[in-house]
Amino acid sequence: MSIPVTLSYQDAAGNMHLAPGVSAGTPGFLDIIDQTLLPCEQKRLKLETPEAVYEAIKQLRVRGAPAIGCSAAIGLAVCAQRFGSASPDEHLLKIRECAAFLDSSRPTAVNLSWALKRCVGAVKGDSIQLMNQQLLDEALAITAEDIRLCAAIGKAGAALLKPGMGVLTHCNAGALATAGIGTALAPIYAAMEQGIQVKVFSDETRPLLQGARLTAWELAVSGVDVTTICDSMASQVMREGKVGVVIVGADRVAANGDTANKIGTYQLAIAAKYHKVPFYVALPFSTIDRSIPDGAAIPIEQRSAEEIFHCDGAKVYNPAFDVTPRELITGFITERGILTEI
Amino acid sequence: MSIPVTLSYQDAAGNMHLAPGVSAGTPGFLDIIDQTLLPCEQKRLKLETPEAVYEAIKQLRVRGAPAIGCSAAIGLAVCAQRFGSASPDEHLLKIRECAAFLDSSRPTAVNLSWALKRCVGAVKGDSIQLMNQQLLDEALAITAEDIRLCAAIGKAGAALLKPGMGVLTHCNAGALATAGIGTALAPIYAAMEQGIQVKVFSDETRPLLQGARLTAWELAVSGVDVTTICDSMASQVMREGKVGVVIVGADRVAANGDTANKIGTYQLAIAAKYHKVPFYVALPFSTIDRSIPDGAAIPIEQRSAEEIFHCDGAKVYNPAFDVTPRELITGFITERGILTEI
Repeated sequence: MSIPVTLSYQDAAGNMHLAPGVSAGTPGFLDIIDQTLLPCEQKRLKLETPEAVYEAIKQLRVRGAPAIGCSAAIGLAVCAQRFGSASPDEHLLKIRECAAFLDSSRPTAVNLSWALKRCVGAVKGDSIQLMNQQLLDEALAITAEDIRLCAAIGKAGAALLKPGMGVLTHCNAGALATAGIGTALAPIYAAMEQGIQVKVFSDETRPLLQGARLTAWELAVSGVDVTTICDSMASQVMREGKVGVVIVGADRVAANGDTANKIGTYQLAIAAKYHKVPFYVALPFSTIDRSIPDGAAIPIEQRSAEEIFHCDGAKVYNPAFDVTPRELITGFITERGILTEI
Repeated sequence: MSIPVTLSYQDAAGNMHLAPGVSAGTPGFLDIIDQTLLPCEQKRLKLETPEAVYEAIKQLRVRGAPAIGCSAAIGLAVCAQRFGSASPDEHLLKIRECAAFLDSSRPTAVNLSWALKRCVGAVKGDSIQLMNQQLLDEALAITAEDIRLCAAIGKAGAALLKPGMGVLTHCNAGALATAGIGTALAPIYAAMEQGIQVKVFSDETRPLLQGARLTAWELAVSGVDVTTICDSMASQVMREGKVGVVIVGADRVAANGDTANKIGTYQLAIAAKYHKVPFYVALPFSTIDRSIPDGAAIPIEQRSAEEIFHCDGAKVYNPAFDVTPRELITGFITERGILTEI
């Protein structure tokens, strides 16, 4: 099993780090795998400037809410190492400016803003050197936490899986969306470590094909049996009795359990209900937004018509997400266990 | 309203014909719109040799079971006009050889074999000139019948539609799949002639995009309000209350009403049931296969993995059709009316 590393802090000697305990004395890099080139090309990028980190997030070279948060945090730390500030006061100002700039790369990802705020808040030192160390420690603490959350979600969810079971997933809520082993795919990796091999069906996930490009790739390189299907084939695969469980990720869960996730998740949940296949949402507890009572209050992002092939005279409707009502969800796989009440 | 002409017999003077009553004395052409170039390019082809007609059907330049049948029939007639046979006996032999060759272009399309057999069976003359006239008359009789069936299906189905109603369809069962105004799309065109404008949602229809390429194009050029959506978005559009009825075509209907159609139809039917949206199948009565008791006996064609984007190490499952059970179908729109019993 060789799950790809989505991101890390790379020190000057070229060593990768995913947890605190690294000296910030010599400037390092934000290391990411360029997801826009996957699966055709596996290219790692070494980023060290605010512009490069911003561009990588904006252009989806790194994507997935947890992965964006960790990348922005490490990115801020490596940028600060190169500011060449004349004083601690000037340094703090530059850190704040850089954080605000990175935060504007993708306004909708809640983890981005949360991680950057947490890093800036950790800067309390009276020397530039100490401030840089605090930034790097906090960024790597966030990264290490994400890895722990993924592992805990995996451990909880693995209890649902049996050898040879068919697992259907949608979009990419895997290692490539986090610093760890993912959310929806974490139970699959955790089960594999226990010697339990499942058979995964990965929806290609139109229009941007995150399933066919990212999920299929990361599972295949990790040694997991994976089959790509078109989104429209999920019901047929269920009818053939090949799916024991559906596991998807979540972008936001309302207080009542209604779940916003990649477009197509709702249709999949309806199909699962019809075929009496259990349907689980995997997520860290922080994805639950208590301020939102139910799914009706979750705004649905509309994306560009250019993402979908269309001819002159035909309109395009392109919602990026949909909301799956609580009644279609069997349970939630979280770091606290599998819950039916959240 | 300007519904595209999918195919016709083109005489030497360049006039198009879709019904018998044309002299076969001077060689004409099979005229088709090249569907592989749609919607980017609208190019008509004039075909006159067995090889050219075979290639056009095999390469899906003309597709849709009724359109294939009509094209093969007209193709056989124009080829015969050029055989230069020395005797009526030699001519009949060449007609039979040509029919067998065209029949091998797509072995699964039942209309192809049926139309060619009917044309060969119509050849009863004792002169080459008479034989050619009988071939052309039969080919154009088949074409005219297809047009009448489409119109009758349209008239029956139009009764379901109301001004501004949202109609969701899948794949292309429109004018481009027939010599007439289609099957699933026929009610939309028929309603339009009565001054009833509906709003169509067209599933893009993975993996070959017949919805995004063909249905959206033919509706747009015909002046119908059409919106392309990804297959995975159908449930979201229904949830928003935008769909009053779903109408799809059929490749084969079993005696009990189970319906084989383009992959994704089954998932759409489940979604329609969940949202209490009526789900209709439009078809000529000849599509009902009484020899097959139920859907379980309908073979599902598996197509090439190359049609779906996939990475090394990932498998692909690519069934071209699925079977929608009778219980999910509200009714059948046929030339005999809208039926709940078939």
